[in-house]
Amino acid sequence: MTDSRYEKGLETLKGISSDTAERINGLLKDICPDMARLVVEFPYGDIYSRPGLDIKTRELITIASLTTLGYAKDQLKAHVHNAFNVGCTKEEIVEAIMQMAIYAGFPAALNALFAAKEVLQEKGLIGA
Amino acid sequence: MTDSRYEKGLETLKGISSDTAERINGLLKDICPDMARLVVEFPYGDIYSRPGLDIKTRELITIASLTTLGYAKDQLKAHVHNAFNVGCTKEEIVEAIMQMAIYAGFPAALNALFAAKEVLQEKGLIGA
Amino acid sequence: MTDSRYEKGLETLKGISSDTAERINGLLKDICPDMARLVVEFPYGDIYSRPGLDIKTRELITIASLTTLGYAKDQLKAHVHNAFNVGCTKEEIVEAIMQMAIYAGFPAALNALFAAKEVLQEKGLIGA
Amino acid sequence: MTDSRYEKGLETLKGISSDTAERINGLLKDICPDMARLVVEFPYGDIYSRPGLDIKTRELITIASLTTLGYAKDQLKAHVHNAFNVGCTKEEIVEAIMQMAIYAGFPAALNALFAAKEVLQEKGLIGA
Amino acid sequence: MTDSRYEKGLETLKGISSDTAERINGLLKDICPDMARLVVEFPYGDIYSRPGLDIKTRELITIASLTTLGYAKDQLKAHVHNAFNVGCTKEEIVEAIMQMAIYAGFPAALNALFAAKEVLQEKGLIGA
Amino acid sequence: MTDSRYEKGLETLKGISSDTAERINGLLKDICPDMARLVVEFPYGDIYSRPGLDIKTRELITIASLTTLGYAKDQLKAHVHNAFNVGCTKEEIVEAIMQMAIYAGFPAALNALFAAKEVLQEKGLIGA
Repeated sequence: MTDSRYEKGLETLKGISSDTAERINGLLKDICPDMARLVVEFPYGDIYSRPGLDIKTRELITIASLTTLGYAKDQLKAHVHNAFNVGCTKEEIVEAIMQMAIYAGFPAALNALFAAKEVLQEKGLIGA
Repeated sequence: MTDSRYEKGLETLKGISSDTAERINGLLKDICPDMARLVVEFPYGDIYSRPGLDIKTRELITIASLTTLGYAKDQLKAHVHNAFNVGCTKEEIVEAIMQMAIYAGFPAALNALFAAKEVLQEKGLIGA
Repeated sequence: MTDSRYEKGLETLKGISSDTAERINGLLKDICPDMARLVVEFPYGDIYSRPGLDIKTRELITIASLTTLGYAKDQLKAHVHNAFNVGCTKEEIVEAIMQMAIYAGFPAALNALFAAKEVLQEKGLIGA
Repeated sequence: MTDSRYEKGLETLKGISSDTAERINGLLKDICPDMARLVVEFPYGDIYSRPGLDIKTRELITIASLTTLGYAKDQLKAHVHNAFNVGCTKEEIVEAIMQMAIYAGFPAALNALFAAKEVLQEKGLIGA
Repeated sequence: MTDSRYEKGLETLKGISSDTAERINGLLKDICPDMARLVVEFPYGDIYSRPGLDIKTRELITIASLTTLGYAKDQLKAHVHNAFNVGCTKEEIVEAIMQMAIYAGFPAALNALFAAKEVLQEKGLIGA
Repeated sequence: MTDSRYEKGLETLKGISSDTAERINGLLKDICPDMARLVVEFPYGDIYSRPGLDIKTRELITIASLTTLGYAKDQLKAHVHNAFNVGCTKEEIVEAIMQMAIYAGFPAALNALFAAKEVLQEKGLIGA
């Protein structure tokens, strides 16, 4: 039954990103494999799988939060990828990050735009 | 022409909240009236008035950011009011805050839910 | 089975604090009862119930984290109570907070000491 | 000789604020009197007493830092008092806080202005 | 007239740094050119160009804020360059950063000193 | 006598890490040698050398704080090394970091686990 929660989280996560689960498993397998399981279970099994907020909005508020934190570049890049995967446009993602200049300040917003730019380059949407 | 930027910001802000501009003016008039003008001009004139992201999403990402900051209870309550004003549902607001437990931690998310609860009480949507 | 996870969390939490679960339920019942369940399930069911770190150390690292966050006074006070409940001494709690002056700065450490002082007063260990 | 460091810190602190040392002693005497000593020794004995930066600038950068932290209202108010004590003008203090809107965001800057306003009211410089 | 605000910001910025505007334009042109304009207009047109605080102090409080944020190394390095450009000495910059150990903690202050050291090396003031 | 405080700090620090003092001296000698002295005197002379909390717990609460800060990877890695030096197990360190997901969020906890993994690789405890 813990498995069913894991399965629900994995299904939700797979709907957002095809490779996150495997990547997290690889990164954590030697240090803390239980954490890889918890990443699937709590964020995706308990939260993202809930009704009440569409997945595009869920990705945009995550981008807002990660921009605000300021130090979470890798997670921000992963969620910019995810936002594209679930149908957000470049314009929506960029607008969400820009708006954070108001609340988190310009350095946080600028660094998040630079991270988003790296994602756009990885996707070949803009030149390197 | 600075006025036109102020006017654009004020129009955008009035569309979100009928009393914020006046309230900010009152709070800042003895200490820094220029800041009251800048609050209208930059956040609302330069950012919220942009196309590319609907106003409901703009309020939800603001709630996400203020929840993540952790220390901005008054601003968070104001934007929960604003989110209702522009058509967000209680469920959407609550889901957005809950999701922040993942990125900003449980204390930030819980304190934001308690702030949102105060707004619901002020609006008479739940008992005091 | 989700229930068994809730039950495990509740048992762990009850071993730390007799009233937290009920208090959280009361605070969240009108705004987000699911969050009250998640507070039991993830922090207490998934984390605090793990072997590998004794409960006294778990409470002290929580106090360190909440001191570092700076904005989580209510949660900090609750965990100072919990630290006493699981056998930490006043000296251990105070030393843990003092040490945070190094990493989080003096304002964070001082405000946490003032919060801990309120707990000591609530417990009648020092005068009001 | 530790005493001489304490004495140097106390002398520096007394030059900035006539009542901070006594106030801190009172607040900490029941919970952690050693911390009251460290507040005098490290910030004032080791740092503020150094040459290389004038005391007005030291108070303004402290105000900038406390504004940026967002959660340290009491310390911010104390340092706004101190800034006045060492000769900063209302305009300099307000400008320093406003500028933080760029780096720490508008909520941090606004809340700091509201805190500074309370100090101005306590000093009778503006109406309550 | 928005142009006049941009022009005022650009003039202020050019007085501080000869290359920041062009560098920001280059970094943002493929992802969000409007943000490059806003960086000139709000921080430099609306804030740095104000009277009431000399430019040396403005750069030092910015260094204090960026040190406190902890995550903004690139912006911190740029403003250490700017501080030198407007006449701050190495000693003033180093003292401002050191003082942040009190408020933001030692890791923030140490990392900021290491960033300032890179600037000194780029300027050939100390060995690589 | 300042020397005796430095000596006490150095002795405490040497008991935790054989190379930190020399490494900090090297990093700071061209930019701010006084800060290298203060790192020994305040954190180690004034705090870590106090009785009332065992050194293993001191290292674990430091790891909790650095994980919570989110931006202090180098310091976190140094203290993971130190935690091993004073007898903490891999399991204790990993559990302490995992628990921070509750308070500081998953990005902070995950990035701290990745930093700890680098330490384990440097120590040859897991493959690169």
